[in-house]
Amino acid sequence: MSVASVETSVIPIRWEDGALHILDQRRLPNEEVELACRNPEDVAEAIRTLAVRGAPLIGIAAAYGTALAGPFGPAAARRAAVLLGSTRPTAVNLMWALARVEKRIAATTPDELAEALLAEARAIHEEDAAACRRIGEYGAALLPPGARVLTHCNAGILATGGIGTATAVLYTAHARGTGIKVYAGETRPLLQGARLTAWELSRAGLDVTLVPDTATGTLFSKGMIDVVVTGADRIAANGDAANKVGTSTLAVLAEAYGIPFYIAAPRSTVDPGTPDGARIPIEERAAEEVTTIAGRRVAPEGIRVFNPAFDVTLAHRIAAIVTEAGVCRAPYEKSLAAALAV
Amino acid sequence: MSVASVETSVIPIRWEDGALHILDQRRLPNEEVELACRNPEDVAEAIRTLAVRGAPLIGIAAAYGTALAGPFGPAAARRAAVLLGSTRPTAVNLMWALARVEKRIAATTPDELAEALLAEARAIHEEDAAACRRIGEYGAALLPPGARVLTHCNAGILATGGIGTATAVLYTAHARGTGIKVYAGETRPLLQGARLTAWELSRAGLDVTLVPDTATGTLFSKGMIDVVVTGADRIAANGDAANKVGTSTLAVLAEAYGIPFYIAAPRSTVDPGTPDGARIPIEERAAEEVTTIAGRRVAPEGIRVFNPAFDVTLAHRIAAIVTEAGVCRAPYEKSLAAALAV
Repeated sequence: MSVASVETSVIPIRWEDGALHILDQRRLPNEEVELACRNPEDVAEAIRTLAVRGAPLIGIAAAYGTALAGPFGPAAARRAAVLLGSTRPTAVNLMWALARVEKRIAATTPDELAEALLAEARAIHEEDAAACRRIGEYGAALLPPGARVLTHCNAGILATGGIGTATAVLYTAHARGTGIKVYAGETRPLLQGARLTAWELSRAGLDVTLVPDTATGTLFSKGMIDVVVTGADRIAANGDAANKVGTSTLAVLAEAYGIPFYIAAPRSTVDPGTPDGARIPIEERAAEEVTTIAGRRVAPEGIRVFNPAFDVTLAHRIAAIVTEAGVCRAPYEKSLAAALAV
Repeated sequence: MSVASVETSVIPIRWEDGALHILDQRRLPNEEVELACRNPEDVAEAIRTLAVRGAPLIGIAAAYGTALAGPFGPAAARRAAVLLGSTRPTAVNLMWALARVEKRIAATTPDELAEALLAEARAIHEEDAAACRRIGEYGAALLPPGARVLTHCNAGILATGGIGTATAVLYTAHARGTGIKVYAGETRPLLQGARLTAWELSRAGLDVTLVPDTATGTLFSKGMIDVVVTGADRIAANGDAANKVGTSTLAVLAEAYGIPFYIAAPRSTVDPGTPDGARIPIEERAAEEVTTIAGRRVAPEGIRVFNPAFDVTLAHRIAAIVTEAGVCRAPYEKSLAAALAV
């Protein structure tokens, strides 16, 4: 499948008739159902409950969410931005998108606001799609022919406005016919690797094998993978990167076994205001995400649970950060600053 | 709770009225239901389907399974041993127990066989309970006061004839009032950590927190644990140890973060006939264990799955192997051979 056709193979969000239609990712892969969001509260709820997720995509969804408040004037749009900005603490793309919206509100007359905010959301969406394409090109060039690639969580079509970030690398290499093989870690507790990544990659015809998170160690020890590529939810100025919980373990394994670990993310994920990973807020989520699966208890009643949604991979374990402005390498303070300045 | 009362807090298998009653671990923690096994086929099926599991416990169950064939003579008992020995390839305790049974068959007249095989099974059971107690004493001495301990899968009451192996260390330290705190990794795909370890430890009043396997990296990086203790399914002569898949990742993390990684296992787990971990057969199990949970699909139809049941932790990452004959340290060729010779 060509990269262009991958781009339209799944539509995670779309604007139609004054509403934001969100593909409800909680119901994948069993059902494809859209939620019609008609006000910012609907969008905030969709983000908070993970109906829509993925750092770049929640930024885009939040921008559309403020557009839904546009007809009600700048005060309503600003209230919407505050609400949407409070939904999830770790991903910085949300704040980045809302900062763009805020600028647009400030620069627009009230009677043009609705149109302007929709135009801003569409611009953010299209720019992200373009960024994904370029990340795919830069990243694919890093893969050896026939590379066996491990990825984690979903940094895919379902996480962005385009062909994904980590998956952009995979889709692009695949379209070039280099015969890659992908391992998708299932990513407990919410199984985004199993439910989302395995689903979208196999739909696009890639060779993908699902592995429990516990079995990734075997992939390394048996020499079954050549490269790890994941996305990120926030990259600090020094290159430390927050991503879905479990990512840092893969980076430690990659270091131990001498395998390169890459992050693929748009520049909107880089937060120059956060000096290092220790300052990135890590969202903790409800115990029920761990103790129940599909409504059935899999742990004793009342058990204490530690359920951080993200972890931080230290910059020294990251071989490169692939952005739409090129491949950044250590020292990241310099290379990331240069990428942001392009 | 004292160690003696822990010992009877859960009864994973028991012999009564000529049948082996097996607590069906697949239904824990939601239901406590026993299977009454009246012939070796029932026991083999219970082992194969993981109604009963845990390396020492399946050895004990297999010994009782041959006892069920005892009344039918030595040929029937030998056929039972072959059947039971074929159920699971990785744990060596199964072969070890069946070798004891074979010796007993050879040394017994047919009319005394039924009684002799039951006596042998009971001896294996009681010796394992005693081994667990001693492992607990040797292992508890390795923990610093107030230790925060990470364990994986279930090396507990539910895996042995006594207070467990890894959990023996925890129960014993707890009974001594040293204020330990336990983290139980949930252990995908079959969630033995969530369903079994969290259940039995919390029943015994230990401070236990359940963590998704993906979040164990955070425990290490945030300095939240002091020690890792797991069981083993087979230990090679050089100290390489096969255990539930995911164990080797914890050993790599422990090495990276400078935390001691211990294995607790009876000597019946040591296989002097296997020189190193590369020669340990690793059971691969069905894709459905990963793609469905409680009957509900969590991955796309037809997806390829890599589902090894065990992995191998290299000896150089193991700080000590705690047996009932004492604490073995590197070089393991020597220390394990000495433990076996006691």
